[in-house]
Amino acid sequence: MERVPVLKIGDILLVSIQIDMEDQVALQLQEDLAERIVATGVHGVIIDISALDIVDSFVGRTLATIASVSRVLDAETVVVGMRPAVAITLVELGLSLPGIRTALNVELGIEMLGSRPDDDELFDDEDESGAAAVTTP
Amino acid sequence: MERVPVLKIGDILLVSIQIDMEDQVALQLQEDLAERIVATGVHGVIIDISALDIVDSFVGRTLATIASVSRVLDAETVVVGMRPAVAITLVELGLSLPGIRTALNVELGIEMLGSRPDDDELFDDEDESGAAAVTTP
Repeated sequence: MERVPVLKIGDILLVSIQIDMEDQVALQLQEDLAERIVATGVHGVIIDISALDIVDSFVGRTLATIASVSRVLDAETVVVGMRPAVAITLVELGLSLPGIRTALNVELGIEMLGSRPDDDELFDDEDESGAAAVTTP
Repeated sequence: MERVPVLKIGDILLVSIQIDMEDQVALQLQEDLAERIVATGVHGVIIDISALDIVDSFVGRTLATIASVSRVLDAETVVVGMRPAVAITLVELGLSLPGIRTALNVELGIEMLGSRPDDDELFDDEDESGAAAVTTP
């Protein structure tokens, strides 16, 4: 149970962090991610932290390291799902997560990573209003 | 930390189970999922259990309940990422997860849920070999 799964979805790898980021877990995740990026050749990594109610300096550093390693392997990283309280605490702690791009949720993260135009149909408007209008012409 | 996040990606909800499925966590997940299905109007739910090295009868029942609730709300459920050892143990325990569809990984799960033909480009063959041959005919 002490391993964060890395899920491949299209051209991205998705990681949902739900367990405490202890040293070993963080190192293992960095390794797993780097290996999967090389094995799959994806160009984007999305890290969902919506389950975390604390992001301390260690987690911040881990995220920054992951982003740097991914960048070297030609993959962009977006951190998504940060809770409002986490954002406030981060700033209060003086941690602004330099070098890390963020988005509100996974879908916006995928958009930020630049899904190809053909894939846009998959990502309909989140509201129900007008959803039917977006099907394939 | 005692809540499993539900991620929306296109027309599916994705749940990656990484923490122990105690009663309260399971109940909360069922509620969260049902609410998100209604709120978003998606037609598919994918539950990744690749982080679990044990699936006992309680987890099996939880998955079955989630699948049933989703079905009532017009969403199909696919359980993905089961480890080989988990599959063997399940069968040895006499648990065959009736009513639950499974797929090897998230991408195959999405395919099983019937992504529209136009979305196929997003889900290339996982192997590098012959990936170009699978695009829409």
